[in-house]
Amino acid sequence: EHSNQEVKTNHDDIIKIEANLDDQTPEQIGYAMDILLEHGALDVFCSSIQMKKNRPATLLNVLVKPEAFDEISYLIFKHTNTAGFRYQGMQRRIMKREFKEVQFENENLRIKKYQYQDIEKFKPEFDDCEKIATKNDWSLQATYKKIQNLY
Amino acid sequence: EHSNQEVKTNHDDIIKIEANLDDQTPEQIGYAMDILLEHGALDVFCSSIQMKKNRPATLLNVLVKPEAFDEISYLIFKHTNTAGFRYQGMQRRIMKREFKEVQFENENLRIKKYQYQDIEKFKPEFDDCEKIATKNDWSLQATYKKIQNLY
Amino acid sequence: EHSNQEVKTNHDDIIKIEANLDDQTPEQIGYAMDILLEHGALDVFCSSIQMKKNRPATLLNVLVKPEAFDEISYLIFKHTNTAGFRYQGMQRRIMKREFKEVQFENENLRIKKYQYQDIEKFKPEFDDCEKIATKNDWSLQATYKKIQNLY
Amino acid sequence: EHSNQEVKTNHDDIIKIEANLDDQTPEQIGYAMDILLEHGALDVFCSSIQMKKNRPATLLNVLVKPEAFDEISYLIFKHTNTAGFRYQGMQRRIMKREFKEVQFENENLRIKKYQYQDIEKFKPEFDDCEKIATKNDWSLQATYKKIQNLY
Amino acid sequence: EHSNQEVKTNHDDIIKIEANLDDQTPEQIGYAMDILLEHGALDVFCSSIQMKKNRPATLLNVLVKPEAFDEISYLIFKHTNTAGFRYQGMQRRIMKREFKEVQFENENLRIKKYQYQDIEKFKPEFDDCEKIATKNDWSLQATYKKIQNLY
Amino acid sequence: EHSNQEVKTNHDDIIKIEANLDDQTPEQIGYAMDILLEHGALDVFCSSIQMKKNRPATLLNVLVKPEAFDEISYLIFKHTNTAGFRYQGMQRRIMKREFKEVQFENENLRIKKYQYQDIEKFKPEFDDCEKIATKNDWSLQATYKKIQNLY
Ligand code: NI
Ligand code: NI
Ligand code: NI
Ligand code: NI
Ligand code: NI
Ligand code: NI
Ligand code: NI
Ligand code: NI
Ligand code: NI
Ligand code: NI
Ligand code: NI
Ligand code: NI
Repeated sequence: EHSNQEVKTNHDDIIKIEANLDDQTPEQIGYAMDILLEHGALDVFCSSIQMKKNRPATLLNVLVKPEAFDEISYLIFKHTNTAGFRYQGMQRRIMKREFKEVQFENENLRIKKYQYQDIEKFKPEFDDCEKIATKNDWSLQATYKKIQNLY
Repeated sequence: EHSNQEVKTNHDDIIKIEANLDDQTPEQIGYAMDILLEHGALDVFCSSIQMKKNRPATLLNVLVKPEAFDEISYLIFKHTNTAGFRYQGMQRRIMKREFKEVQFENENLRIKKYQYQDIEKFKPEFDDCEKIATKNDWSLQATYKKIQNLY
Repeated sequence: EHSNQEVKTNHDDIIKIEANLDDQTPEQIGYAMDILLEHGALDVFCSSIQMKKNRPATLLNVLVKPEAFDEISYLIFKHTNTAGFRYQGMQRRIMKREFKEVQFENENLRIKKYQYQDIEKFKPEFDDCEKIATKNDWSLQATYKKIQNLY
Repeated sequence: EHSNQEVKTNHDDIIKIEANLDDQTPEQIGYAMDILLEHGALDVFCSSIQMKKNRPATLLNVLVKPEAFDEISYLIFKHTNTAGFRYQGMQRRIMKREFKEVQFENENLRIKKYQYQDIEKFKPEFDDCEKIATKNDWSLQATYKKIQNLY
Repeated sequence: EHSNQEVKTNHDDIIKIEANLDDQTPEQIGYAMDILLEHGALDVFCSSIQMKKNRPATLLNVLVKPEAFDEISYLIFKHTNTAGFRYQGMQRRIMKREFKEVQFENENLRIKKYQYQDIEKFKPEFDDCEKIATKNDWSLQATYKKIQNLY
Repeated sequence: EHSNQEVKTNHDDIIKIEANLDDQTPEQIGYAMDILLEHGALDVFCSSIQMKKNRPATLLNVLVKPEAFDEISYLIFKHTNTAGFRYQGMQRRIMKREFKEVQFENENLRIKKYQYQDIEKFKPEFDDCEKIATKNDWSLQATYKKIQNLY
């Protein structure tokens, strides 16, 4: 989602995958999340579930484009302990987006412009803000304050 | 869901909307929930998710009737920071319902009767119970205890 | 807490133990909870925490009387994977309690009476209600409805 | 899921049921989970949701085979307080599975073998491990360590 | 915490109260939270816990000044179903704070200034922002954007 | 906790810090967690709380040695939006620990040995396992399986 590609449409289709994990450690799940993100999952996130026998388990959620479903399926079976997962097609409604780039403190700062009907939102790219914050030893809040008039 | 309308069927169709929120404050999300409920969402609720980069984020869930989907979509883009959300059609199985009204301590108290096959449930309307509790400086538990033989 | 002992005081002292679990499976944690409850812990419960490196981990909470602290400490080290836990003394404010026993559908039903200043609460013992519900193939809600005038 | 049946296919179809519970106690929900599991639900799990009016509520999730949907629907209406639930069909991608049985410390120990493309996983049956652990007063971790070379 | 009082010190003392709720409905807990906040609790918040017997329960947390402890204790016993709660003294490290008031769109807008060593933070009062947002049918994000140069 | 130092005692003292965050984004909280861990916090973790006005907020927990309390306090005020946090001293009961190093697939693999009374646990260092897994394109589970007889 952080690529510099323009998006000119207001909808697309994805597959949502859900796997209940009750026999794997959090350390391993954190590692699996990283692998899935690196191999093209649109998003990966965990929520907490309470399963039978007082098990404080984890629900792994993975969003993928249909064309990535087979590779991600393989990686889920490889990197989690699950013996099966469920999935379904979903639609997405999305804001159109464009990018511009400004200079701030000698760093490139990408600004994303989102648009849906008459609603417009502008967001500075998180990774750029983080870089500027770290380089200057500022907090992120202070960083956003300093750049707030650039967009 | 708290209207006084009778419901005489056991199913209907809804759309479930899900949006991952990682760049908006809880204060703003609480406000957005209120707006969505006031503008006709069937239900709005949040769950906690763990996103990449150690982000303790929020999954916003909104249930709508199909005819309300466009207005609610607009309001989600307006009042949350999300650049896109996913959704899907779902069916619901529901209990038939009727209402009656009784008097208690000089207040109207609506009683809902739900029915599915041979199962019957009776529930006093929450808002009425809350009003009675507050007026008398009772707890809700004490209030339910006092009215338990009215239904 | 489910013994039939009267409690005639409004306070006591406990120790609260907290252990972050990130390298153990939910299956094993559920088993450890059972062991700790069987060996005299006052209460054992889990909450979900997000630890570093995207680990969806579990915080194990154990409440013990001071005299049970050493045995429970041993069992935590034996049955969880943690290499250390933190703890602190806490005070409790509690309601005085008495028990009575009634008959319902040929079963013993214990009723607990709690009291704090002018507040009185009555609760049927959960285990008795569960037994009656199961034996009659009733739901718990239906069971509570049927016994509501006994206390 | 713990039967000894072989599974020779990589997909099946299920129905996922979701019910928001805000007027029922956790004690009753725990009982309802047990009932649903005993009557053939594939899986039952809870997650925490925040509903309107500051209600810390519970989302009950039930996975069923299509042929069990009607019975489970009835039991949800009987044992929870909900007046309606939503559901949807989902597909599952699953690993093929076979079973073998070995002897360990004079107990039968079932080993499940899972397979998907070139990925193989072996898992000892949890219930057998739990039995061995309890009988010998070992922790589950110690038990898994002792049997690790059997599969 | 939203009073207009200046705070000129960097520490104070509070009591933290914790109650495990497993036999009360979310509807009742939401009501109890409101009562406690109205009667002077510094903060009230809930977290989700998994208790024995698969109970998806709620941990009620209440922060109070020592002089409010007795009244809040009474109200917890009155408005929750708990038979006892645990508590402990804690210290707080706090930022010094001052208030100023500006005009925006014909509304008063309070700005809080917080200070700790060389760190300064400015926050517009949430309730004022909410009022301005609602009156103008703006989102909160849009509101904060419009006032960002006032502090 | 991942240093190679031996630990020869069974207890130490820490301070536990808690901050309720309701006006900061998850993106910023993830960044703050990293900063605190890099500057010597023993552990940093988040849990989800439900605050007033339907705010799905985050409780930031930080464990520190007493000598690090002042620096970490400063960083919490700098990198979070909180205007105050609470804290308390806690004791820890910990297992004694020693380290050894073995070779596996031409990589150093540290094994930690923990001991408390007659309980012994051995854990391979997570970071080493992760390195081996990544280098060989194995899953973590497969990696642990391959090294299980080395400790
Ligand atoms: Ni992003
Ligand atoms: Ni790869
Ligand atoms: Ni309702
Ligand atoms: Ni409106
Ligand atoms: Ni109980
Ligand atoms: Ni024992
Ligand atoms: Ni299983
Ligand atoms: Ni039955
Ligand atoms: Ni506030
Ligand atoms: Ni009052
Ligand atoms: Ni570690
Ligand atoms: Ni630094």
